[in-house]
Amino acid sequence: MMIETITYSNGTVKLLDQTLLPLERVMLDIPTPQVMWEAIKMLRIRGAPAIGVAAGYGLWLGIKDVNDEETREEFLAQLQKTRDYLATSRPTAVNLFWALDRVVKVTRESTLQTITELKQLVLSEAQAIQQDEKATAQAIGDYGAPLIANAKNVLTHCNAGSLATYGIGTALAPIYVAHQTGQAIHVYADETRPLLQGARLTAWELQQAGVPVTLITDNMSASVMKQGKIGAVIVGCDRVAANGDFANKIGTYGVAILAKEHGIPFYVAAPFSTVDFNTATGDNIPIEERDPNEVTHFGARQTAADETKVYNPAFDVTPAKYVTAFITDRGVIYPPFTENLFAYNR
Amino acid sequence: MMIETITYSNGTVKLLDQTLLPLERVMLDIPTPQVMWEAIKMLRIRGAPAIGVAAGYGLWLGIKDVNDEETREEFLAQLQKTRDYLATSRPTAVNLFWALDRVVKVTRESTLQTITELKQLVLSEAQAIQQDEKATAQAIGDYGAPLIANAKNVLTHCNAGSLATYGIGTALAPIYVAHQTGQAIHVYADETRPLLQGARLTAWELQQAGVPVTLITDNMSASVMKQGKIGAVIVGCDRVAANGDFANKIGTYGVAILAKEHGIPFYVAAPFSTVDFNTATGDNIPIEERDPNEVTHFGARQTAADETKVYNPAFDVTPAKYVTAFITDRGVIYPPFTENLFAYNR
Repeated sequence: MMIETITYSNGTVKLLDQTLLPLERVMLDIPTPQVMWEAIKMLRIRGAPAIGVAAGYGLWLGIKDVNDEETREEFLAQLQKTRDYLATSRPTAVNLFWALDRVVKVTRESTLQTITELKQLVLSEAQAIQQDEKATAQAIGDYGAPLIANAKNVLTHCNAGSLATYGIGTALAPIYVAHQTGQAIHVYADETRPLLQGARLTAWELQQAGVPVTLITDNMSASVMKQGKIGAVIVGCDRVAANGDFANKIGTYGVAILAKEHGIPFYVAAPFSTVDFNTATGDNIPIEERDPNEVTHFGARQTAADETKVYNPAFDVTPAKYVTAFITDRGVIYPPFTENLFAYNR
Repeated sequence: MMIETITYSNGTVKLLDQTLLPLERVMLDIPTPQVMWEAIKMLRIRGAPAIGVAAGYGLWLGIKDVNDEETREEFLAQLQKTRDYLATSRPTAVNLFWALDRVVKVTRESTLQTITELKQLVLSEAQAIQQDEKATAQAIGDYGAPLIANAKNVLTHCNAGSLATYGIGTALAPIYVAHQTGQAIHVYADETRPLLQGARLTAWELQQAGVPVTLITDNMSASVMKQGKIGAVIVGCDRVAANGDFANKIGTYGVAILAKEHGIPFYVAAPFSTVDFNTATGDNIPIEERDPNEVTHFGARQTAADETKVYNPAFDVTPAKYVTAFITDRGVIYPPFTENLFAYNR
C-alpha cells in the first residue's frame, strides 16, 4: 500500500522522481537545499504532506555542512536563511510552512549549543515529521474507512495517495484501509490535467496495491455520477481556511459542485496540520499560477498553436458549503466548520 | 472566419485532416467511401454538420464509378449499400443519418433513369447540403449574436466552430458575428480531453480569425466561472432529443451543471436538423465509446501504466433543464422544449 516517496539513510536524502512515473521508477539523490527546492517546484515530490517531509530534510541539507567552529547564532541564521529560501518553492500548501516552522521553532527553543548537537536535532526533527506523517496517514485511513463502507465506487481527483505523503495517503488512505479489511471497493480516478497526477500516479499506485481502478478524463466525472456509479468523492487538500473553505488541485471545485448536484457525499481528507487558522476564508489563500507550457504541451509534444494565451492556476478554492466532512488524523469533522475545526484545535 | 473543412472540385473530394492541426495543415484526397469512412471514424473530419457534408460526398464516391450500362435499380442498390456502410462510421451524430437519408430520398424520388443523370443528381445533392450548411451556420450566428451582446467572455467546450461545419460554425458562429460587428468578445476555450479539440482546433481557428481566446484545461472552467469571468456558455451538439435533452462531446454535461450553479446562461447552438423527433429523450441516444488508448496515451506518448482500465465515452447527455435556449438556423428556441421544438418543426 505504501510507496516510499522520500528516504534518509546514512547521511543521504533521496526521493522518488514522480515526474517520471509510471514509466520509470527513479530515486534521486538530493544533496543540497537548491536541489530540494527544484524538486518541490518541479513536482518531483508533491502532495502537501510529502512536501512537508521534504521541507524538513531540505532544512537539514542547508545546515549539515555548517562548520563545527561556528556559533549557535550563526547556525540559527543559516537555518533561517534555508527556511526562507525553501518557503519560496510553492506558495499554496500550508504544510510546507508548517514543517519548516516546526523545525526552526524546535531548534530555536532548544538549549543545545554545539553545532554537532544542533545538526542532530534538525535531522531528528525532520525524521520525526516523517514518522508523524506515517501515523497521520494511518489515522486518516482508520477514521475514513467507515464513511465509505457502502460506497462501492469512490471518485478521487489528482493524487492524494501514498505518493502525496509518507504513508498510505490522505484521500486514498480510507480506500486502502477498506481494501485491506476485505471491503469491495473500486476507484474512479480523474486524470487531472495538466500534469496528469491521476493518470500517472493514482491509477498506478492503486494498481500496485491491487485496488481496482478505472481511469477517466476530468470531464467524464459528471457523466459517471449521472449513471449512479459514484457512492462518495474523496479528495486531499493543500490548505483549509478557518471557515472550512479549502484549496486543492485545480478541478476540485468543479467536482464538488457535481457531487452536490448528484447528491453524492464529498469528503476532504487531510492532516489536521493542513488547517490554517491564520487564513480566515478561501479568499485569502494564494493560488500558484504555473507555466503556460503545461497546458499547451504534453510532455515534449506541442498540442496548441504557437502563442496561444493560457490561464494555468495550479489550485482552486472550494467553499465550505460543498464539504460533507473533513477526514483528519484527529477525527471526522462535520459542519459547522468554523466552530468544529476550532474545537479540534486542541 | 471560415476555414474550408471539405472541398469538391473537378471530380476530386478533399478534406482538411484535423488530426494534424494546429501544427500541420494538410488537405487529404478522399477517393473512395472507405477512405471517407476512415476519415470520419478517426476524426480527420468531425463536428456534426461537417460529418453531414462528408456523408453526402461519401455517397457520391460510392456511386461515381457505377457503369453507365447498369440499371436504375442497380444504381439505387449501390447507393443504399454505400449509405448503410457510411452509417456505421459514428453512431451518435444525427446529422450523419440525416444527410445520408436526404441524398438517398432525393435520388429514389427522382424520375431520372440514366446512370449519368443519377450520378449528377447525387453530386448536386451533396453540394446542396454543403451550401445549405454554410447558410445554416450564418443564420445561427445571426440569431445568436444578440444573446451574447453583453457577455464579454464566452466559454465553449470542444470545437463547434468553422472546423466542425462548412461555414462559420455553430457555437462559434454567434461569436464570429459579434466580433465582425465590432463587439468586444473574448473566448475561454476548454481544451477538451481526450482529443483536445479545444486546444488544437477552437483556440487555433479563433486565433486565425483574430478573436481573443484563452485556453484552459477542462477542470479549470469552474474556477473561471467562480471568478465572475464568464458571461455565457455556448456549445454545439450532436443530437437533440424531442424533449430538449441533447448529446454533445464528453464534458458538456459537467459544464452545464457548473453554469447553472453560477447563474450563467447556457446556450446550445445547432442546425435545426440536429433535432431528432424520433428520439424521445436523451436516454435513447446511443453513446459511442472509443479506444482506451485515447485516455492512456497522448499522441504517441504513454501517460498511464500498462493495463490501466479506462472508461472512454465520446459523448454525454445533458438534460433539457440545464439549457437556457437552443440557437438554431430557424431561430432561438426557449423552454418548454417539448412544445417549442415541435412548433419550429415546420
